Amino acid sequence: MAEEKVENVVIVGSGPAGHTAAIYAARALLEPLMFEGFMAGGIAAGGQLTTTTEIENFPGFPDGIGGIDLMSRMRDQAERCGARIMTETIASVDLSSRPFAVTTKGGETFRTKTLIVATGAIARRLGVENEEKFWQRGISACAVCDGALPIFRNKRLVVVGGGDSAIEEAVHLTNFASEVLLVHRRDSFRASGAMQNRLKQNPKIKPVMNSTVVRAEGDKLLERVVLKDVLTDAETAVEAAGLFYGIGHKPNTDFLAGQLELNEAGYVITKPGTSVTSVAGVFAAGDVQDPKYRQAIVAAGSGAKAALDAERFLRE
Amino acid sequence: MAEEKVENVVIVGSGPAGHTAAIYAARALLEPLMFEGFMAGGIAAGGQLTTTTEIENFPGFPDGIGGIDLMSRMRDQAERCGARIMTETIASVDLSSRPFAVTTKGGETFRTKTLIVATGAIARRLGVENEEKFWQRGISACAVCDGALPIFRNKRLVVVGGGDSAIEEAVHLTNFASEVLLVHRRDSFRASGAMQNRLKQNPKIKPVMNSTVVRAEGDKLLERVVLKDVLTDAETAVEAAGLFYGIGHKPNTDFLAGQLELNEAGYVITKPGTSVTSVAGVFAAGDVQDPKYRQAIVAAGSGAKAALDAERFLRE
Repeated sequence: MAEEKVENVVIVGSGPAGHTAAIYAARALLEPLMFEGFMAGGIAAGGQLTTTTEIENFPGFPDGIGGIDLMSRMRDQAERCGARIMTETIASVDLSSRPFAVTTKGGETFRTKTLIVATGAIARRLGVENEEKFWQRGISACAVCDGALPIFRNKRLVVVGGGDSAIEEAVHLTNFASEVLLVHRRDSFRASGAMQNRLKQNPKIKPVMNSTVVRAEGDKLLERVVLKDVLTDAETAVEAAGLFYGIGHKPNTDFLAGQLELNEAGYVITKPGTSVTSVAGVFAAGDVQDPKYRQAIVAAGSGAKAALDAERFLRE
Repeated sequence: MAEEKVENVVIVGSGPAGHTAAIYAARALLEPLMFEGFMAGGIAAGGQLTTTTEIENFPGFPDGIGGIDLMSRMRDQAERCGARIMTETIASVDLSSRPFAVTTKGGETFRTKTLIVATGAIARRLGVENEEKFWQRGISACAVCDGALPIFRNKRLVVVGGGDSAIEEAVHLTNFASEVLLVHRRDSFRASGAMQNRLKQNPKIKPVMNSTVVRAEGDKLLERVVLKDVLTDAETAVEAAGLFYGIGHKPNTDFLAGQLELNEAGYVITKPGTSVTSVAGVFAAGDVQDPKYRQAIVAAGSGAKAALDAERFLRE
């Protein structure tokens, strides 16, 4: 009877969290196996950074670095350290017995003593007309990442959304913008009282209620956003250099199918400050467990923690 | 009466945490002011990485990068983003009134609305004979950082210390070493029962009790470590390619003089998963608040959190 191979560490996901976990686990000679995904969640291996252009806030790159370039460097590094990378998407896991089982979309099953979930989250997009054309040419889903770009300085910017994160994005963008329109399809914000107070106290933010964005317009860069009044259907074009989506993120946790404790928004719950999840031997890192900061460098740091936590678990 | 300038954000410390905080705060146009220190705590501006040679585990650098090079890139990046950097060491702070006051060793006082403490920690050194000569040429204070280097592969390594972190270092090094001598000056370890169990279960670790290391020997790289029996004063030379200090770290928190809640080892206590300290408006990031992971990439991630936490605080 052939003995089935059992991995020490399987990493699912290939953003900054996954690759940093792979680098650390490989350097500890744990021979990690990463499933980088094949257009998992609709985006390329490497994760959300592959959908950005220039990254200015990843420390160590004073001239900035392209998102695809940064992720390709991390992938090289993980491989050179000894990580094995498979370009497969994980369809399901079985965490109810040990070793754990992970099964690819192709139907192949792998067994592992520990699992690191680093599948990230995807910013929800509105799907407005011309969205693809102006993505990262005026349209963004991350005010903290992109707000400081010169194209947005002292310009009117539009934020879409009605919750805490939309208001947070709008407030952050007032650092750069001449004016921020906060467009919400309902007649009141669902954000917390504290956030609504911050909104009222900020004269640069102009709420536009009962409205949606229907179209982006411009030449090479975004120049105008067309709003539609949902009560009257009237359309109005407003000049704007930026359109920021603050309509939430979707963590990529469907494949876990309820075997790991998630919060109400679907994020993996970790013990704060660690990568420890509700199942011993399963660790989570990066945006899949971080609804708050959602930054590449934060994700990378949490990936290192996950590998160190997994190593400790394996030695115990 | 001249109005005194009040800073938005003062950052104390210039390692990966401090510089990442500076990059994020500067991009949010908060015009942060960093005190990078002048041989603060006995090490150069840039922090502990300036005492290392090649860094293989900072994601984004597949060929590795020198510690001084990485920190100089981060410093450039912080400055380009708009951070102001002063090469001064902070001697004291006053957090009892607002705005907070920070005072340099030269006696100059600055006022600030928020403070980010990122002063790091320093690995305690034993001060053995030839320590400087073999520092980073066989002697190290970080098994996770340096254990995977080729010079240590399948060699005998020596770890000094008797607590949890010494045993943790020793266990980690068994990934690479042929044998690990765990040298402790007392007749029993003060590590927890669980850690002592891990020690007993690991046949590669040989405890050497009632002993200290007195001298490092070798040509260019460390080749031998001279142990001394503290009961008999007898000296024995053992072949060893590595000497790892597991005798603890000292967080650089003396200048806080009890104004911020610290744990019994002197680390700043933060709300887990955030940079929030016991004083509203004061945030901490990096090794000064992390006795557990102590990795550059983890510190950098926590620096981003501190800047985002400070920005939120300022907007409230």
